[in-house]
Amino acid sequence: MHETTRLAGLIQERIADTIDRHRRALQPLGPDASPLLDEALTFLAGGKRFRAQFAALGYRAVRPLNLDERVGTELGAVLDAACGLELFHAAALIHDDVIDRSDTRRGRPSVHRLFEAGHRERHWRGASDHFGLAGAILLGDLLQSWADELLQAACDALPDRSAAARAREHFNRMRSEVAVGQYLDVLEEQIPGFAEHAEQLERSTRVLVYKSAKYSVEAPLLIGAALAGADEAQEDALASFGLPVGVAFQLRDDLLGVFGDAELTGKPIGDDLAEGKRTVLVTLTRERLPATQRRIFDDLLGTDLDREQVAILQRTIRESGAVERVEEMIARNVDRATGALQGAPVRAEAAAALSGLAERAARRSF
Amino acid sequence: MHETTRLAGLIQERIADTIDRHRRALQPLGPDASPLLDEALTFLAGGKRFRAQFAALGYRAVRPLNLDERVGTELGAVLDAACGLELFHAAALIHDDVIDRSDTRRGRPSVHRLFEAGHRERHWRGASDHFGLAGAILLGDLLQSWADELLQAACDALPDRSAAARAREHFNRMRSEVAVGQYLDVLEEQIPGFAEHAEQLERSTRVLVYKSAKYSVEAPLLIGAALAGADEAQEDALASFGLPVGVAFQLRDDLLGVFGDAELTGKPIGDDLAEGKRTVLVTLTRERLPATQRRIFDDLLGTDLDREQVAILQRTIRESGAVERVEEMIARNVDRATGALQGAPVRAEAAAALSGLAERAARRSF
Repeated sequence: MHETTRLAGLIQERIADTIDRHRRALQPLGPDASPLLDEALTFLAGGKRFRAQFAALGYRAVRPLNLDERVGTELGAVLDAACGLELFHAAALIHDDVIDRSDTRRGRPSVHRLFEAGHRERHWRGASDHFGLAGAILLGDLLQSWADELLQAACDALPDRSAAARAREHFNRMRSEVAVGQYLDVLEEQIPGFAEHAEQLERSTRVLVYKSAKYSVEAPLLIGAALAGADEAQEDALASFGLPVGVAFQLRDDLLGVFGDAELTGKPIGDDLAEGKRTVLVTLTRERLPATQRRIFDDLLGTDLDREQVAILQRTIRESGAVERVEEMIARNVDRATGALQGAPVRAEAAAALSGLAERAARRSF
Repeated sequence: MHETTRLAGLIQERIADTIDRHRRALQPLGPDASPLLDEALTFLAGGKRFRAQFAALGYRAVRPLNLDERVGTELGAVLDAACGLELFHAAALIHDDVIDRSDTRRGRPSVHRLFEAGHRERHWRGASDHFGLAGAILLGDLLQSWADELLQAACDALPDRSAAARAREHFNRMRSEVAVGQYLDVLEEQIPGFAEHAEQLERSTRVLVYKSAKYSVEAPLLIGAALAGADEAQEDALASFGLPVGVAFQLRDDLLGVFGDAELTGKPIGDDLAEGKRTVLVTLTRERLPATQRRIFDDLLGTDLDREQVAILQRTIRESGAVERVEEMIARNVDRATGALQGAPVRAEAAAALSGLAERAARRSF
């Protein structure tokens, strides 16, 4: 636990330094640009930092890394990569919230809502919500560039060129897959009616794998490991561990999106239901519902729900047995992940830490 | 002219190959992702390719480059960088069109309008315009990542590490500045009333410099030159040439945004006027208007304009003398640019080609 806290502190420092550096570089553009930089800093102060932790552990799976020493070239490179992942994630969330019309994030108004409110308070011209949209698109674009710069800095700092190239490959694949995965997720919500069960489950699972599981766990791990010069066997082992952890992570997210405590998740209760997300949880629920009940369920999903309607949907999901099934899937995936580390060619202390982090990712309540 | 055509052909080939490679890599995500890839290809088939040309010429200013030879490592790297700039520009335009609520681009519906139309035709659920927005944000994000990959490939292919690092620096600065410049541009449109003349001109000029001049000409030139291993004197000379060319380029754009032939520009006539863009042209117009006329001008600017109102604004701008003043500024900037090449430490054949391209960028009719 000491290491998690220490890493979180180092990441926060480095993020603040990064934004400060950009603030200085952008000074010639005048003080009007400040809201972008201020919001970047505030937004990035939040979050669970799972990606940063997995990246650091991916590195430690291959090479020792002492978080307590002075930050030199090697630790600096790992921190840059980890911060790059956090910035990229922030960019993705800011754009996602526009796309999903989410009003809150991490317990605060989402970025487009913040820029919208600023516009309204100042009695500016034109539509406040459209200004909010513009601010969120541009801040997301900026953070995406800065994320890439950080990853680049990490790659440049290390002497092993082929290791750097591998890390870039994983980062690039991740970026493409998460954008397309998000597109497929949005697409699902547009198509009227559901596919028959087997196909729908396949579609929900595909979104889960590409939009979240690979992105949240497997890719950060592999980027960290590649930077440390991992060989193929090590990368394979970490992928075999990372993918099921990522699946468990997202299945937990699906449960939290329906049953989570708004105080802890920072998102309104039943958020996923109002958005009409076709998660694995929803797909498993529908499989077990009698036709009439399924029709009612389908009609409510993806509409503006009041508290009572959210409660009805929650009860339906629970009574269908889908919650237990998803909990079983989570447990099975964590077991599979832990199993993949048995006898794997990764450093023992890192394997232990990875198992612990897998548990935390799968059991979290926010 | 042969070289321009040859370069355009090579760029088009490389863009098609790039998107094809991504299409293959994304195959595991299924056929639903195709619209993103198809639109990437179609969108990128258009455009004037100024950035690609300036990048290639920036390289040739420092090292010879034979476009007629088989594409080997060196030419391949230059093409990757040039294509990277074209992809980045496509991403920026796609996001800009959302932000500026533009319905057309390059004579076709803008990307968010295309996705919106697809949604409507298929009678999907939910709001078609919001789906259009989602598609445009995500396609922009994808192209931004792919742009970066191409630039990375260019840097990795060349043996000179410090040259690659310089090229990255220019690319990174460009990305930050253009996003913030675009934010400042949007901000201008929100603020009620204009600042007094000198301050307003400073603000309009700042947007012009950061959102366009540096981005369209100076940065591509410097990226190309850096890849070729330019020294400081060479970079300085190219910056002294590139910035005024970029200013002339954007001043021409301002004129085309008001007086351009819609058939040629691919944008509706008077587009900038309806958007309320506070260009240098508009600022110079207002300076010379008597108070009453200025009030009428201000009231019309940034509203839904019919053909007649566009004609009124065009006449006002012309009669204020602002068009001549902007034409003079263009000529002065082109002269300054050409002057900067006199005796500059750049290769002679490239200097001649640069002067020609500067003229084309400044005199174009689309």
